[in-house]
Amino acid sequence: MTPLVGAVDIGASKTLVTVAALPIADWPLHRQVVRFATPRDAAECVGRVCRAVTGLAGDATGRLVAVGCGMPGPLDRERGVVIHSPNQGWRDVPIGPWLAERLGIPVVIDDDARTGAIGEAVLGAGAGSDPVAYLTIGSGIGSGVVLGGRLLHGAHDLAGEVGHLVADRQGPRCSCGNRGCVEAYASGRGLERRARLTWGDATTAGGRRTPRSAADVFRAALLGDPDARRLADEAAQALALALASLAATVDPEVIVVGGSVGLAQRRLVRRAATLARGRCMWESAEHLRVMSAGLGAESVVAGAAVLAGYLIAPGSP
Amino acid sequence: MTPLVGAVDIGASKTLVTVAALPIADWPLHRQVVRFATPRDAAECVGRVCRAVTGLAGDATGRLVAVGCGMPGPLDRERGVVIHSPNQGWRDVPIGPWLAERLGIPVVIDDDARTGAIGEAVLGAGAGSDPVAYLTIGSGIGSGVVLGGRLLHGAHDLAGEVGHLVADRQGPRCSCGNRGCVEAYASGRGLERRARLTWGDATTAGGRRTPRSAADVFRAALLGDPDARRLADEAAQALALALASLAATVDPEVIVVGGSVGLAQRRLVRRAATLARGRCMWESAEHLRVMSAGLGAESVVAGAAVLAGYLIAPGSP
Repeated sequence: MTPLVGAVDIGASKTLVTVAALPIADWPLHRQVVRFATPRDAAECVGRVCRAVTGLAGDATGRLVAVGCGMPGPLDRERGVVIHSPNQGWRDVPIGPWLAERLGIPVVIDDDARTGAIGEAVLGAGAGSDPVAYLTIGSGIGSGVVLGGRLLHGAHDLAGEVGHLVADRQGPRCSCGNRGCVEAYASGRGLERRARLTWGDATTAGGRRTPRSAADVFRAALLGDPDARRLADEAAQALALALASLAATVDPEVIVVGGSVGLAQRRLVRRAATLARGRCMWESAEHLRVMSAGLGAESVVAGAAVLAGYLIAPGSP
Repeated sequence: MTPLVGAVDIGASKTLVTVAALPIADWPLHRQVVRFATPRDAAECVGRVCRAVTGLAGDATGRLVAVGCGMPGPLDRERGVVIHSPNQGWRDVPIGPWLAERLGIPVVIDDDARTGAIGEAVLGAGAGSDPVAYLTIGSGIGSGVVLGGRLLHGAHDLAGEVGHLVADRQGPRCSCGNRGCVEAYASGRGLERRARLTWGDATTAGGRRTPRSAADVFRAALLGDPDARRLADEAAQALALALASLAATVDPEVIVVGGSVGLAQRRLVRRAATLARGRCMWESAEHLRVMSAGLGAESVVAGAAVLAGYLIAPGSP
């Protein structure tokens, strides 16, 4: 039977599960991706993930040899524990050991931004480039750096936290408690908060629907609303700091941008890339390449397959 | 005869040469460091370097097996060529091939900031830490990142160019042509320029000597001069951006600060570290460790020895 890896993306709202044959050379290897709303109960989530991977492996007449799992941090990767996942309300959940016990195979977990980074670097828009940086702009902002096909974790598992670089110390409050983080200006959650502070809770003003989501803000900016244009411009300026920091420190061959906001707001990303070129050395600016995630909404689940593959054959995915 | 490597630091004003026995475990292995004013003529410089290394190797009754050389960029590392060194007026000087031909052994050259980084990471304040970032604040500002004992070069040999991150797009002009770079605010050359623009060319004003060098500015700031205090504060703010960018992207175990200004202005570096903690995620801030270069003014020549050692035994320095 073909050796297979299971790949899991446990998102704030949705969980994606698939399997892939080893060695993983292309995406998708197995066409079916199972999707379900992430249960708030961690044990129930693990149960559904197990049923999905074993079902998919059975369909593919393969033998599961490892599982990779990307999810929001902070995590204790060594022990496979979710330290805290505010969206699910999970605290100290040993998701890795639970999966390993139920499935009888090794499990690797990693932060979703980093998992997306390895997915894009090996199977997506970054394939063939080195180093690859990945910036995900969704409800929050995260990033990951891949060097020679390996994730950079840093000394304290904090490499790639450019979402919390401070663009302006007098800026808007961020969910992290600080002020003026890139995430406060340019993430989905940050923009929702800024929209509420700008237009209040009213759904209509002068007969027109006022912005409530990041998408609403960018739509209103396109229609010429001056407040929305200011918010959109500040979002691009903040993202430029994140891109310029990645370019100046790591000198990636490409920066891949994903996440729900990053994928939908191409104009924002283009503007941020242009501004970033003005914020770093001219040679770095000349080489700065920003691309959209090649795997769309599947960067993380693809990266989970790559991480599982590394567990089995450390040399290659 | 003991296998020895030659180590060379060709600085803007001074050249340092020494030798070290392999494997390089400690610094200094060979106590003598030959110093001379860097000749403006490249061929003369190569001649003096060759005489110095062969002389030192003879004294140590060893056999030279490789030479490492750190110098200001931009360089073509592959071909061993100095593309342009404004201070010496060198252009397209094949320093690597010249040394290799004269000495009959392999030569490696690298940018001085990166060479200093590997020196500090292997033999200096960063020994035992991983990753190690190194920030050199001298006439310019450069940095280098060492991961698992190896230098990060990036896709275009531009990793670590945090000196040209733009802290304020309306800021002072930088030698690179851009405005508001970290280097324009906090480097020796940047501060000299700011001093000249602030106090003019006069050497005295009201009977007191006006600041002309970076050291003068920091001295005047300590004495309470309001303009000098503003320049010193803006220098610390700009350096904080460089430190925060390194912390957020690479998550180094330690950031080692060297260079003539970095070594002399401990108060500036402490202030910049404090400000950097306010500009990144709180976990990153908690872990941010900034130390002074352990090898003082010899980080680069020590790193050159390490790079030469890697040429001979790629596994270890």
